[in-house]
Amino acid sequence: MFQQIVDAKNRLKGVAHQTPILSSRTLNKMVGAEVYFKCENFQRIGAFKFRGAFNCISQLTQAQQKRGVIAFSSGNHAQAVALVSKLLGIKATIIMPSNTPQVKLDATRGYGAQIVIYDIETENREEVTAKIQNKYGYTLIAPFNNTHVIAGQGTVAYEFLEKVPDLNSLLVPCGGGGLLAGSAIAAKGLNSNIRVIGVEPELADDAKQSFESGKIVTIPVSKTIADGTRTTALGHMTFPFIQQYVDEICTTTEQAIIEAVKFHLLRMKIVVEPSGALGLAALLSKTVKAEGKIGIIISGGNIDPPILQGILGE
Amino acid sequence: MFQQIVDAKNRLKGVAHQTPILSSRTLNKMVGAEVYFKCENFQRIGAFKFRGAFNCISQLTQAQQKRGVIAFSSGNHAQAVALVSKLLGIKATIIMPSNTPQVKLDATRGYGAQIVIYDIETENREEVTAKIQNKYGYTLIAPFNNTHVIAGQGTVAYEFLEKVPDLNSLLVPCGGGGLLAGSAIAAKGLNSNIRVIGVEPELADDAKQSFESGKIVTIPVSKTIADGTRTTALGHMTFPFIQQYVDEICTTTEQAIIEAVKFHLLRMKIVVEPSGALGLAALLSKTVKAEGKIGIIISGGNIDPPILQGILGE
Repeated sequence: MFQQIVDAKNRLKGVAHQTPILSSRTLNKMVGAEVYFKCENFQRIGAFKFRGAFNCISQLTQAQQKRGVIAFSSGNHAQAVALVSKLLGIKATIIMPSNTPQVKLDATRGYGAQIVIYDIETENREEVTAKIQNKYGYTLIAPFNNTHVIAGQGTVAYEFLEKVPDLNSLLVPCGGGGLLAGSAIAAKGLNSNIRVIGVEPELADDAKQSFESGKIVTIPVSKTIADGTRTTALGHMTFPFIQQYVDEICTTTEQAIIEAVKFHLLRMKIVVEPSGALGLAALLSKTVKAEGKIGIIISGGNIDPPILQGILGE
Repeated sequence: MFQQIVDAKNRLKGVAHQTPILSSRTLNKMVGAEVYFKCENFQRIGAFKFRGAFNCISQLTQAQQKRGVIAFSSGNHAQAVALVSKLLGIKATIIMPSNTPQVKLDATRGYGAQIVIYDIETENREEVTAKIQNKYGYTLIAPFNNTHVIAGQGTVAYEFLEKVPDLNSLLVPCGGGGLLAGSAIAAKGLNSNIRVIGVEPELADDAKQSFESGKIVTIPVSKTIADGTRTTALGHMTFPFIQQYVDEICTTTEQAIIEAVKFHLLRMKIVVEPSGALGLAALLSKTVKAEGKIGIIISGGNIDPPILQGILGE
């Protein structure tokens, strides 16, 4: 799998951004450690999801590409599949829930994807998707349960450790586990001493429960502000990698997430979505011990203006 | 003066951040040009003012440093003088108006400066400052009317052109003219073909009036949202440099400034204060023609949360 990440890295060259790594003197002084942030909020479409989507869709057969792709997502994966498809000249259909904010519909449509809205009260997402998929022969691009997607996301940590090889620990947000699995494989492959820590909201702690019990635990849809981590369970493909390569999964409170978004915004001057701020939240709330060189992956920066307004008022 | 900027650059090495240069594919496509942003919102204290303050204060005589420094400012210059003084072990006194937001008082005090509040209704800032200055022998650190300060600010454009030498034009926000004067000298010194354009709000167009009439025009205090440009006149030291090295001064509407802050925030994922967004405002509102390689200096990112909330609601 490590080799697949190396291959993904070559595939993404000149297509994905090599996102910057930032640090903050103020933060380092506050926590007494050296903290580095890999800023995927500056990635195309504003989140790491572009990497996995490109690595996956670009490897489809010509026949598959000609028929088109389909995905279900209300968030960053939707925009990633839409943009990648546009770049590769492939038809994309995105299944989105009826409560998707207008800005996300517009952004996804802006990349030229066809959008199909399903009623979250009366319809089942998987059934809606399967029906369209079967009718047109589209290939489903899973948001995390796909080795090409996982390998693509792993390039985030790969790039990070190329620039800062001697990190003592790496904090990675965890939803379905694609970013965490890929990053853990890459990080351990480059530096076997690194401690890889997954971070998720207390309100959506399925990964922690799964990690500790040794089997995939499914929870009800969470109301956490970190919308990118509202997935109800890890994937059957991400979980084994997480078991093998991740050292620990920790959780943070909603208040800590809000404080972290504010710190990113007001002190570091960068816009980070709540899911992307999980690493800093864990550090600031001392869930993770601050020592040595700490790497934090900021997964994305797509935040709805009303949510951001609310956070600023806290 | 160009040599003084080179000297300032050496003086700032390892002390000021070499701020990143960012670009946006979305923006380049929208405007049909190649746009580069020099991000002084990532500078220490969140704005370019750190450079001028350090270049100036670090060159004071030992006797002057021992007595201490004084400055009047409600904004970024206050924090810059406070932090630089702390770094150099110098006592700093900052005169701030009674309507200064609490966050700015806290930030300035946080760097260890002594703050003296004057009543904007009944007291005169210059008199308050002069009285304290005379009593204690403090050296006044002017916000822009000082060659060392101007030279320090000029390092922004110097660093910018070292990385992107073939810029066709350079857009620089203009308040008292320190950043504009310094940047124009540096830019023309490195690339004589570059077109240097100052940008200020329509509501605070004293620099444009001065530039076009050939003498310093003073206007009443403006209510523009771009608080960094509310200075009522260019300095007698900045104006001659601006006359000699700047090609044009243009103005932008308040609405264009707000749109630019929102674009920086929601599309580029960076926090830029209204004054810092003037360059993008001029470009997006087509006040400046978009062609070739355009460099834009983002002067800072210190924005009060309630103001940011208001902008997000527009």
